Amino acid sequence: MKINTYPQKESWSELVKRPILQREKLTELITEIFSEVEKNGDQALLDFNKKFDGAEIQNIKVSETEIESAENQISNELKQAIQQAKDNITAFHASQNTEKEKIETTKGVVCWRENRAIEKVGIYIPGGTAPLFSTVLMLAIPAQLAGCKEIILCTPTDKNGNINPAILYTAKICGVTQLFKVGGAQAIAAMTLGTENIPNVFKIFGPGNQYVVAAKEFAQNYNVAIDMPAGPSEVLVIADEKAIPEFCAADLLSQAEHGSDSQVVFLATDEEIFNQTIEETEKQLKELPRNELAEEALKNSHFVLLNTQEEAFEFSNLYAPEHLILALEDFEKYIPKIQNAGSVFLGNYSCESAGDYASGTNHTLPTNGFSKNYSGVSLDSFVKKITFQNLSKEGLQNLGKTIEIMAEAEGLFAHKNAVSIRLKQENERI
Amino acid sequence: MKINTYPQKESWSELVKRPILQREKLTELITEIFSEVEKNGDQALLDFNKKFDGAEIQNIKVSETEIESAENQISNELKQAIQQAKDNITAFHASQNTEKEKIETTKGVVCWRENRAIEKVGIYIPGGTAPLFSTVLMLAIPAQLAGCKEIILCTPTDKNGNINPAILYTAKICGVTQLFKVGGAQAIAAMTLGTENIPNVFKIFGPGNQYVVAAKEFAQNYNVAIDMPAGPSEVLVIADEKAIPEFCAADLLSQAEHGSDSQVVFLATDEEIFNQTIEETEKQLKELPRNELAEEALKNSHFVLLNTQEEAFEFSNLYAPEHLILALEDFEKYIPKIQNAGSVFLGNYSCESAGDYASGTNHTLPTNGFSKNYSGVSLDSFVKKITFQNLSKEGLQNLGKTIEIMAEAEGLFAHKNAVSIRLKQENERI
Repeated sequence: MKINTYPQKESWSELVKRPILQREKLTELITEIFSEVEKNGDQALLDFNKKFDGAEIQNIKVSETEIESAENQISNELKQAIQQAKDNITAFHASQNTEKEKIETTKGVVCWRENRAIEKVGIYIPGGTAPLFSTVLMLAIPAQLAGCKEIILCTPTDKNGNINPAILYTAKICGVTQLFKVGGAQAIAAMTLGTENIPNVFKIFGPGNQYVVAAKEFAQNYNVAIDMPAGPSEVLVIADEKAIPEFCAADLLSQAEHGSDSQVVFLATDEEIFNQTIEETEKQLKELPRNELAEEALKNSHFVLLNTQEEAFEFSNLYAPEHLILALEDFEKYIPKIQNAGSVFLGNYSCESAGDYASGTNHTLPTNGFSKNYSGVSLDSFVKKITFQNLSKEGLQNLGKTIEIMAEAEGLFAHKNAVSIRLKQENERI
Repeated sequence: MKINTYPQKESWSELVKRPILQREKLTELITEIFSEVEKNGDQALLDFNKKFDGAEIQNIKVSETEIESAENQISNELKQAIQQAKDNITAFHASQNTEKEKIETTKGVVCWRENRAIEKVGIYIPGGTAPLFSTVLMLAIPAQLAGCKEIILCTPTDKNGNINPAILYTAKICGVTQLFKVGGAQAIAAMTLGTENIPNVFKIFGPGNQYVVAAKEFAQNYNVAIDMPAGPSEVLVIADEKAIPEFCAADLLSQAEHGSDSQVVFLATDEEIFNQTIEETEKQLKELPRNELAEEALKNSHFVLLNTQEEAFEFSNLYAPEHLILALEDFEKYIPKIQNAGSVFLGNYSCESAGDYASGTNHTLPTNGFSKNYSGVSLDSFVKKITFQNLSKEGLQNLGKTIEIMAEAEGLFAHKNAVSIRLKQENERI
């Protein structure tokens, strides 16, 4: 932990810096993977699965039987939990659907927007020790709500060629249309280019390691969109003198356990709360079953004692956290001060893990300072908003002169003529 | 013109292909420009202005005097036209502001979203023969509506160091906070990195040549967001047997005059309308004062005769046009068939130039097939939507078990503990 008491404002820009990632130059490897997948399709995927994941797979596509058997492998307790989360995430994301509102900007000139689902989307779910079925909820639910026709999911298997049953079960109940046993950069290449079995998609969502991240960036060269730029997960907690150090410590650690590159920042204005939270963090850390990652993450993390809440919000906006927890009694009053954050948790009972799993908000959020210029995933991420306009004859008569004058001033005479020819014909007819 | 009568569906994928752009590898040049701007700041900009644009400029920043004098240089007629356009664009973009809606997903668990403006945005307006003051309207109006604190505009000058007065005037009335005399990749570098005079921004908007496009892509390496991927402008017109060939031809030409790489596509189901529109296009082309660009663009453009309107919409969705004009009597009925388009113009009096200038919709739209996965610029482009959640004690009691079960199933014990520690304390207190 890096402990900073009343740091000078001049030093803040150093404090808000993210740890620099040693990102290797992966372009060559990624180019090769895309080229292999383009050339050899599914066979390339099977070969890469074997080479990178040590998994011998016969069929790249997950069968109905596998999905059905997954359902029998998970407990009713977990099914119920997933169902409550699904209901909440559905309710919140459904509320993001905007009704079309027609605006008559000039008499006879009516403009509006309509949503259209992105027809084909791809979801990547990483492998590893934590089976992220919660991320399946966060991405497949809004995709289905938006009306995406094809919702493809790729995820690596274990060495025996199996996918965690919670992932399969969640994918099924959230309307994923096809699941494929492929991970890493080759999965992204497959969803970008298409293979015999895997359809190409228009937008790719989901987290992943540095190879996946690099492959998603590379996919954009093929006109595929991606959810957002990537970075390690992070939380910033602001505490007042009424905050509960045990809760603050637990929240900081729940972020720290994500990975050694996770970052946690704690801002307090009360020295006692500040010191107690540091102590409590160390204490709880020891009790965690797998504390190596969290311990590593804490080494890069800042505990900062500040003079005022105003300073804390100034610092937080400069940092632009993915998750922002306000352990403040009068949090309402501070909401307008929040400029940059991915998702905000208000008060002592709004722990980050509520939003990670089940409250209803999305957990795919902008990290690495990207909350300055990006929103998290929402229903909007799965639709395009198309603008429409309808001008009646009267509308064009009311607006035509303006268009003609502006087009001429820009030297675009065919633009002007598209109006003139219509107005002229109208006049002739009158 | 490429004329295709009743092409087989198998050939459509060829017909919807965009002309391949010979985009040079600009990475080296762009890297050098960014590096120079980072090292030498404003002086690098002045040097590049001289080198690339032949403009000797003393002060990179546009003065108040210059802005005031611009106001005197443009006619009242043009001012009134700009004002009508501004009013319409303001009305339509203001209507895109969504009220926050609080959703109680589980008793005691309340979630909502709030908009926050991106604090600092940059607008690039290209130089050249057409002074695109309309693009200033399209980008500065939503930026100001969103509440962006800093709205920076960069545009190149002519050889005498002057900016077209219509650009200066429009920037002033739309709330641009600072204007700078710099164009090309160096302008993008300046807004990305910041110089003595030019602030760095969080998101960059606006069109430009291949150097500007490459620089915007490069800016993303510095965590700056951009409006959308770029491509040449395009229109697709669908006409029925009641369409008016003169209007269709005028719309096709208004797109074609944008540049030699513009693409126009005409789809008709009536052979007479089809042939008359081809004739009319050739006739109107000859009458245009500057027809070289339009003529060049038409060479790459497709006129396609199809059997049914259903086919036309299938073709259009495959093409995914930036602008889609429905010269159809019963256009209402076809709206649900539109899947991919940037902006749609309905009926005989909704010419594309209405949306380009003054109806209220935005003219910064996804081209090059990007309407499959991107929306055009809107108020949303200038804000982040931050999610908020507040769980009461009761809320956490109602949701806590679900979070604990899911966190444990993902092997994330600190996530579980953040709930358990709170529920435990509650139980102890009860």
